[in-house]
Amino acid sequence: MEETFVPFEGIKNDLKGRLRCYKQDWTGGFRAGFRILAPTTYIFFASAIPVISFGEQLERNTDGVLTAVQTLASTALCGIIHSIIGGQPLLILGVAEPTVIMYTFMFNFAKERSDLGRDMFLAWSGWVCVWTAGLLFLLSILGACSIINRFTRVAGELFGLLIAMLFMQQAIKGLVEEFRIPQHENPKLTEYLPSWRFANGMFALVLSFGLLLTALRSRKARSWRYGTGWLRSFVADYGVPLMVLVWTGVSYIPTGDVPKGIPRRLFSPNPWSPGAYENWTVIKDMLNVPVVYIIGAFIPATMIAVLYYFDHSVASQLAQQKEFNLRKPSCYHYDLLLLGFLTLLCGLIGIPPSNGVIPQSPMHTKSLATLKHQLLRNRLVATARQSIKKNASLGQLYGNMQEAYHHMQTPLFHQEPSARGLKELKESTVQAATCTGHIDAPIDETLFDIEKEIDDLLPVEVKEQRVSNLLQATMVGGCVAAMPILKRIPTSVLWGYFAFMAIESLPGNQFWERILLLFTAPSRRYKVLEQQHATFVETVPFKTIAAFTIFQTAYLLVCFGLTWVPIAGVMFPLMIMLLVPVRQYFLPKFFKGAHLYDLDAAEYEEAPALPFNLATETELGHGASHAGDAEILDEVITRSRGEFRHTCSPKITSSTATPANDPKSLHSPRHAFSPRVSELKGEISPRASHSPRAGEPKPSGLGRSPLNPAST
Amino acid sequence: MEETFVPFEGIKNDLKGRLRCYKQDWTGGFRAGFRILAPTTYIFFASAIPVISFGEQLERNTDGVLTAVQTLASTALCGIIHSIIGGQPLLILGVAEPTVIMYTFMFNFAKERSDLGRDMFLAWSGWVCVWTAGLLFLLSILGACSIINRFTRVAGELFGLLIAMLFMQQAIKGLVEEFRIPQHENPKLTEYLPSWRFANGMFALVLSFGLLLTALRSRKARSWRYGTGWLRSFVADYGVPLMVLVWTGVSYIPTGDVPKGIPRRLFSPNPWSPGAYENWTVIKDMLNVPVVYIIGAFIPATMIAVLYYFDHSVASQLAQQKEFNLRKPSCYHYDLLLLGFLTLLCGLIGIPPSNGVIPQSPMHTKSLATLKHQLLRNRLVATARQSIKKNASLGQLYGNMQEAYHHMQTPLFHQEPSARGLKELKESTVQAATCTGHIDAPIDETLFDIEKEIDDLLPVEVKEQRVSNLLQATMVGGCVAAMPILKRIPTSVLWGYFAFMAIESLPGNQFWERILLLFTAPSRRYKVLEQQHATFVETVPFKTIAAFTIFQTAYLLVCFGLTWVPIAGVMFPLMIMLLVPVRQYFLPKFFKGAHLYDLDAAEYEEAPALPFNLATETELGHGASHAGDAEILDEVITRSRGEFRHTCSPKITSSTATPANDPKSLHSPRHAFSPRVSELKGEISPRASHSPRAGEPKPSGLGRSPLNPAST
Repeated sequence: MEETFVPFEGIKNDLKGRLRCYKQDWTGGFRAGFRILAPTTYIFFASAIPVISFGEQLERNTDGVLTAVQTLASTALCGIIHSIIGGQPLLILGVAEPTVIMYTFMFNFAKERSDLGRDMFLAWSGWVCVWTAGLLFLLSILGACSIINRFTRVAGELFGLLIAMLFMQQAIKGLVEEFRIPQHENPKLTEYLPSWRFANGMFALVLSFGLLLTALRSRKARSWRYGTGWLRSFVADYGVPLMVLVWTGVSYIPTGDVPKGIPRRLFSPNPWSPGAYENWTVIKDMLNVPVVYIIGAFIPATMIAVLYYFDHSVASQLAQQKEFNLRKPSCYHYDLLLLGFLTLLCGLIGIPPSNGVIPQSPMHTKSLATLKHQLLRNRLVATARQSIKKNASLGQLYGNMQEAYHHMQTPLFHQEPSARGLKELKESTVQAATCTGHIDAPIDETLFDIEKEIDDLLPVEVKEQRVSNLLQATMVGGCVAAMPILKRIPTSVLWGYFAFMAIESLPGNQFWERILLLFTAPSRRYKVLEQQHATFVETVPFKTIAAFTIFQTAYLLVCFGLTWVPIAGVMFPLMIMLLVPVRQYFLPKFFKGAHLYDLDAAEYEEAPALPFNLATETELGHGASHAGDAEILDEVITRSRGEFRHTCSPKITSSTATPANDPKSLHSPRHAFSPRVSELKGEISPRASHSPRAGEPKPSGLGRSPLNPAST
Repeated sequence: MEETFVPFEGIKNDLKGRLRCYKQDWTGGFRAGFRILAPTTYIFFASAIPVISFGEQLERNTDGVLTAVQTLASTALCGIIHSIIGGQPLLILGVAEPTVIMYTFMFNFAKERSDLGRDMFLAWSGWVCVWTAGLLFLLSILGACSIINRFTRVAGELFGLLIAMLFMQQAIKGLVEEFRIPQHENPKLTEYLPSWRFANGMFALVLSFGLLLTALRSRKARSWRYGTGWLRSFVADYGVPLMVLVWTGVSYIPTGDVPKGIPRRLFSPNPWSPGAYENWTVIKDMLNVPVVYIIGAFIPATMIAVLYYFDHSVASQLAQQKEFNLRKPSCYHYDLLLLGFLTLLCGLIGIPPSNGVIPQSPMHTKSLATLKHQLLRNRLVATARQSIKKNASLGQLYGNMQEAYHHMQTPLFHQEPSARGLKELKESTVQAATCTGHIDAPIDETLFDIEKEIDDLLPVEVKEQRVSNLLQATMVGGCVAAMPILKRIPTSVLWGYFAFMAIESLPGNQFWERILLLFTAPSRRYKVLEQQHATFVETVPFKTIAAFTIFQTAYLLVCFGLTWVPIAGVMFPLMIMLLVPVRQYFLPKFFKGAHLYDLDAAEYEEAPALPFNLATETELGHGASHAGDAEILDEVITRSRGEFRHTCSPKITSSTATPANDPKSLHSPRHAFSPRVSELKGEISPRASHSPRAGEPKPSGLGRSPLNPAST
């Protein structure tokens, strides 16, 4: 992305790019059929459950002015609008923890002012939203998103870890609360007797740890040995919601023996309860806010604008990481503009605004990559089986598979580059097969593991469409109506889910992995090297890594501490934005440029010695395509952000490294094919990198990354 | 072992063999120094905790006639005597679950007879012990242990799994009990209010699952990445007792908020309480037992004799499995004789008798193998470091290491064979090093990973001595005095420990692994083949494996069901003995001989095609020595019983298979050495197999196995 500061230029480019693929966004989604429900349900839960409990949190913090009904409504409304007319449909919108913190700060401020108070809080926060929206418009029009490539890994990952810490904090706080009498409750009730409180707390521990452990296990179901493939996929796709169901079921087992309030369950007013409508008419009150507060609203508005600008862009960035090989263009400027409108809308109807959320947005893309992989895989396996039945030769087989693959492509952007990729694929297949003398012989299926072969060939691709986002947002809206059912979920299951979200977001975060590295015994560091690892592990001295990580950790702790400070805490978004200049001007004084590049940089910086040419790209693409089984795909997608393919360090040439790294290849029947397979992978995969993402000035996979400071 | 039925012949041979190494049993143990405390503590806990809770179980089942004081006393007394004058000091004695079941049957019988009743129960059971002892003498003198090679894998593993099921049953029962009011307790107490009972149950769930999960984790500490090596070893060695401490500590956290009885803790009379002495003088009452019951006591006595004969021998067998490469002779006949005396002694002083226990006995050997490995490793690493400091060449280095290794050997049995092994080791080292041109150059430590090199060279060896057994038995005896401290352990922690013992005993049990194989999806069976696996996986058709496993499972369930039947349940040991003829005469009618050999046979049967010669032995030894890091050693010892080295199936020659199977070798600096290393391993390790275990007629490692029907 170029840094263009010509007003409206960025928005225009974004719109042009997205309009070209708008129709395909829908048709592609519908063509996926029922399978689209897997990522939809997964994201729906990841989206709805935090929003519900943020609603509970807001209810406590705002004396009941805002509840789960409002947070759900905001999430659903903004989500539906964004999924239909938004730019990047991979981005998930929702009421986020930072918003809750900001609104709490604002409520605490307002309720102590005699001319605002509890009643005028929503009207005043309406003004905050108005100012925020104005600032967002300004930022968007002036092309502020052009500089998001300055939001390097150090800022994004710090923010990600901060969110994980806030989630974990909420989980722990929630569990501790289970042992206490909730505020605003009658302490004389049976369930608040010391014995029942203790019982409730212990039950909560059982339920939340049960959910956490089983949910973490279920995500790994694809690599289980037991059960049919269908069952494993089902558990991996729907395991987390399933576990919420199961543990909610478990919470009903001792019903006969315990009073009604144990375990505690979600508390939220039904949307049809009296008073639940108050906020919708807040616009009437807005003119009654004293002028000084209308002007004063500008201060929190700047904070929220900074926060949203950062959070929305980083969430979008993380949802569009390089290794997902996205085909469709990014849309930062236009999305920020839309966010302004959404904030305005939410402010005027008195609900807290939504913005792009972490970790749900990258979770969404990951689940769509798994979906696309399954779709491609099924099609290719079917084709291959058919060819083998017809006694086709290896050459014919690959020909047929290429054709099938070709048909599955997003029709918009594949013509030129994929045609080239396919041609080469076929050529190298023929060549390799000729060498082994197999090319024209019928294939023996016992020696030729189709499914594995295909898994090795398939690159990471993402089913980019709008249907899953629209569906999940609609389902979130449905939650408002389904409140009586949702109320059956024990709060302790929620705390377990929070801990699950926090833990799920850690792998792949290099900041986190560097923290772990600090605690790794020196004699065990070779284990890190044996697995997938980032370049810095090999190129940067340990002391430098340690210093950098300790600095970053200290910074993180300051940000985290700031969220606890009563009123000044409103400044915490500034701390994160401050990281951008710190990274650009301060850090280079303490760290060598080369080390900084490796610790915190866009891809091209990490291998500065390699000249930029197509051959390099092919090699990179080669790596990106090494998605083994579906479970390996999970691994690839999870473990790595932005730069996972320099890991077979430059000393080894990739073509020899691949079979050597893969112990399986020594046993499996496809051993004889290995060298060819790795060549093939080099051919089929770079298509993603070759295909320029429409609307972007730089036609290269490397230039694609918004983290790329080369284009500054 | 020969099948000798000449009276006293077996006992004589046993005694001769063990007396030769008796002195070394003590000196070797003391020379290990403080490190001996790791296996001692480990086994002490594994031994004491079940005995304590069996005591609790007996107390409930016998209306308080027998308590934990008696079970502890029996375990300590028998353990001390056995460790001093017993034959096989690896065998751990204790009051076992089957004994508890038999005593419960006997009590239920006695208390309903008007002329016996509760008061005369111990006197009558004294007579049972007298008869049992007589039968055991007879069996021992007539050489019944000669036929324990007929106790094939199928019987031993079924018994092992039965014990695991009984342990797991106890864990579940115990947890369910935590929600109920215990018998003989005042239900009006605060802690038995419904709310506190529920709270207690939930707390118990937290404590027991906490213990189970953390204990399982701590056993894997050696492979952790974090913490210093010292800490990892400490956690791996002492983690389980540590976790008992930790969770006992956790149980005290809510002391302020809960009544005194929550969580429930061990209940047992102090040994100095009134009434705790009653049983010691039972011998007075024995003559008051009506003659008909004295004679009738013969019936349960036969059952107990059969049970002890089987249980004691199988526990001893499992503690002396082939892959432990034991140097000292076995001692089945004499140990059975001694067991007779111990049973008599226990019967006369009114305590339940002890016998060899599973899984503690094999656990004991495993922990001593780890100890020996550490001792050898430290010595060799120190030697190698010294050599490198002196700028020694690779040839000198290996020379020095051989010398050090030589010095560490048990002096009794290594002279001839080890000298040979060492010579060849040196030769092949020199040869290999000459090829790479390194032999006379000083070694570069950065390229040469001493610790790994040594780990690869070290064979599995066991520190065979009497000190750990004596110490642990003494500590069990100390528990009687430490009862006031032990009472602080919550019962729920015990249930977690029971589940831990059950789960720890599963890996390596081929019966269990075949059950898992039945549930493994056909498409995932290759994963089994990729790991260490038994021969049958490759050679026996899946349907045959399934049929055999289903038969065995049905048999297991019948045995398990039988333990539930009130009085007839006393017959369950017969069911297990019945497996011996079933295996010998019935199964061959339904399964092919070759398949039976692979599924359930001694080693030599599994590779019938290979002629027996030294070369074969070398190859086998080669395998057995492939003990990588300490954590790999754990793996090797745990995963396999009796036959883990045919796994690199005969199709591949071992020397090429080893580096290929080891993905690490491709990355690590010792890559260049790999082929040499694997040769070396072939040289250093077969020493164990070459060295004939004293007192045994067959001078071969293969003939060593008591499972070997060839010698019948």
